[in-house]
Amino acid sequence: MSADLLQALAAVLPPDGLVTDPDVLEAHRHDQAGWAMAGTPRILVRPGSTAEVQAVLRVASAHRVPVVARGAGSGLSGGANAVDGCILLSLTRMNRILELDTQSLFAVVQPGVVNGSLKAAAAERGLWYAPDPASWEFSTLGGNLATNAGGLCCVKYGVTGDSVLGLEVVLADGSVVRTGGRTVKNVAGYDLTRLFIGSEGTLGIITEATLRLRPRPPRATTLVAAFPSLVAAGAAVLDIMKDTRPSLLELMDRATVRAVEKHRPMGLDADAAVLLMARSDAGGEQGVAECARMAAACEAAGSTFVIQSSDEAEGELLMGARRFAFSALEKEGTTLLDDVCVPIARLPELLAGVERIAEARRVLIGTFGHAGDGNMHPTLVFNREDPDEVARAQAAFDDILQVVLDLGGSITGEHGVGVLKRPFLERQLGSETTKLHHTLKAAMDPLGILNPGKLL
Amino acid sequence: MSADLLQALAAVLPPDGLVTDPDVLEAHRHDQAGWAMAGTPRILVRPGSTAEVQAVLRVASAHRVPVVARGAGSGLSGGANAVDGCILLSLTRMNRILELDTQSLFAVVQPGVVNGSLKAAAAERGLWYAPDPASWEFSTLGGNLATNAGGLCCVKYGVTGDSVLGLEVVLADGSVVRTGGRTVKNVAGYDLTRLFIGSEGTLGIITEATLRLRPRPPRATTLVAAFPSLVAAGAAVLDIMKDTRPSLLELMDRATVRAVEKHRPMGLDADAAVLLMARSDAGGEQGVAECARMAAACEAAGSTFVIQSSDEAEGELLMGARRFAFSALEKEGTTLLDDVCVPIARLPELLAGVERIAEARRVLIGTFGHAGDGNMHPTLVFNREDPDEVARAQAAFDDILQVVLDLGGSITGEHGVGVLKRPFLERQLGSETTKLHHTLKAAMDPLGILNPGKLL
Repeated sequence: MSADLLQALAAVLPPDGLVTDPDVLEAHRHDQAGWAMAGTPRILVRPGSTAEVQAVLRVASAHRVPVVARGAGSGLSGGANAVDGCILLSLTRMNRILELDTQSLFAVVQPGVVNGSLKAAAAERGLWYAPDPASWEFSTLGGNLATNAGGLCCVKYGVTGDSVLGLEVVLADGSVVRTGGRTVKNVAGYDLTRLFIGSEGTLGIITEATLRLRPRPPRATTLVAAFPSLVAAGAAVLDIMKDTRPSLLELMDRATVRAVEKHRPMGLDADAAVLLMARSDAGGEQGVAECARMAAACEAAGSTFVIQSSDEAEGELLMGARRFAFSALEKEGTTLLDDVCVPIARLPELLAGVERIAEARRVLIGTFGHAGDGNMHPTLVFNREDPDEVARAQAAFDDILQVVLDLGGSITGEHGVGVLKRPFLERQLGSETTKLHHTLKAAMDPLGILNPGKLL
Repeated sequence: MSADLLQALAAVLPPDGLVTDPDVLEAHRHDQAGWAMAGTPRILVRPGSTAEVQAVLRVASAHRVPVVARGAGSGLSGGANAVDGCILLSLTRMNRILELDTQSLFAVVQPGVVNGSLKAAAAERGLWYAPDPASWEFSTLGGNLATNAGGLCCVKYGVTGDSVLGLEVVLADGSVVRTGGRTVKNVAGYDLTRLFIGSEGTLGIITEATLRLRPRPPRATTLVAAFPSLVAAGAAVLDIMKDTRPSLLELMDRATVRAVEKHRPMGLDADAAVLLMARSDAGGEQGVAECARMAAACEAAGSTFVIQSSDEAEGELLMGARRFAFSALEKEGTTLLDDVCVPIARLPELLAGVERIAEARRVLIGTFGHAGDGNMHPTLVFNREDPDEVARAQAAFDDILQVVLDLGGSITGEHGVGVLKRPFLERQLGSETTKLHHTLKAAMDPLGILNPGKLL
């Protein structure tokens, strides 16, 4: 069977499109998700065109072999992890920007284009591709689409899906559909674009995307504020979101601030319960005025320290602590980066819940993330050589998700379900909504060959 | 059979939830779409709760009777038109705002709430529900969701779907699913929220929605500019969209301007090829500065006349012509309001195409709409007593859709497919994508009872 499969794939792909070298397979079998299970792939294929992706899926259907699509492998939930015996389908060779329309403000890209490459190509023409997952320098747009990746700009400019006009997708049987189009408004038929976005390769494989470009926002004004309590910081977040339109509103808790200070002393207030970072890109005087309103909100909420800057270099310096947050925590041990989302008024309860869990389970948890969206990344730090500590970290991870569900939140805001959150999905969705997921999956992938065991 | 059905429905609904009066049925059997076909309903039901909607759908499934959901009946594509023998399901009694969370910035509403009522309730609390279809004063949120309604604010704040966090939906078999949630970011499972939005009652019936609220934008600065040619106006639109973030960017062509001037003389330039209206809500000095940049773009593109105002009353006066556009055209004869969308760089070609068609088919066509989104409403005006003119209008309608498809556009930007555009959908989607629509429809509504003959 394996020889048959190899032969069938060799017949439809160029020689360098097929890889069986065990070392290469090993390097490609998982993404960046800490302890998500990964299987052993049978083969790695690297198609160079939509037609080759179609051919691979026809072979996979004929042989009933699972297909797992992947880009840069920078995912954080195991969504791109291999399953045993699968065809790993790497889209990194499909890495061309096919069109960049500076008048109608869209780009047509292949899935293997790195997010940062599109950003750079747009910037060269005075335009902006907004979505900015933390991985933007190395993650591919295909992966961004498959997970509906978020980032820092979402609080004002939305998630990846909010910048997508249309897709080309190869279905399980090898047929090709085109969804959406090149217009910003389009209600001709069902919103299949959004159905594929965030579906983690379980419904089809995206082979082309038409993405929205925007004018570059004006230079931002940056603010950093320290708070003595979770409740005070939470009040500031609500006030800022109700009254202004920050282009960024980030948060770091005490554990994260201390890790940052330990590994890169920046004079941060290590006693603060929370550090908030906010930006306004309203531009000029309006940006300064909006930032001043945010500062006033922080002070009214009880901030012990507020600093503002309209200078770009200084603003980047202020943001440095936030950008270093995850790296700082990584220096403390093995990390497991969680990703949860709550209604913004529940942020203090979420943070308090995480602190409580850290104490009860005796695990270091640093929490940082996108306060304006209620989207937090509690990061568990543990010694992977200590089985007891690993077990306590696992328990803490489960505890956090339960707290999130109790607060009316989502078990994943921007990283996806993948393998990591799969056991928790039905708890969030309920049985009827889960059933509908299975109905759609069965209708669109009747043989169940597309990334089985992920998401659902 | 009919008596059986009536009896089954009477068993699950209160007496005033069932209407069989032929006059009432007649008044409810169609929406506002000009010449879309409408059938004769068997009965009108008016459930007051999700449980009653479920009960109706269980009865409908058992009897295999079609169900057509409707709100205010203000749709423009016949999506809510009755089909012969159907149960018309009016959601107007489910008209409560269940929750208005001023901290986490969302509202939970029933589908029968009028858009304007939510706007007013939000405004009372200093907040804003952004979506503003022209029908906002009387259309219901359920209808806005079913069609993914657009409006004037979309150019900056997106369509209805961009303000939806979650839904409760009753499926064809009477089961209830909940999609999304209360958080602004959420990638737990497939994006079923968006699948239902714009599905025109063919996949399920929305019984509750969690909608996003925003801070109220600052007071707007308004601009009106006249252009001697379509190309000049088109250049101004591109320049404005590339360089600024208008909160509104509307257009009226010569035929529309002349109709407005005829019925409500406002001193508009009746020789101008195009009138553009734009707004900035960047606020304060920044709003004035952004508006000045838009004015400069208009002048650089060859505008013959530009006027700006930061005064709210004066701004509304300037917008008056645009708001009166459709009414003015209606005074010229029977109208058929079309709704098409093209990439913004193709706007001059679209407008030229419509002018050419008007001439060739000898039909008055006034075009106005949302220039910043490329979303136009060519409005055919004809004498419905003249069969030849009706035939020419029908031919012109078809011609316009072909021009739109040739320009890479969409046959509907915000009104939906309904009955009106159904014959054109596959031409836009292609056969494979159409097939996928049918696959999903069959999976989710295997008996085909939900709004049959619409959209697909």
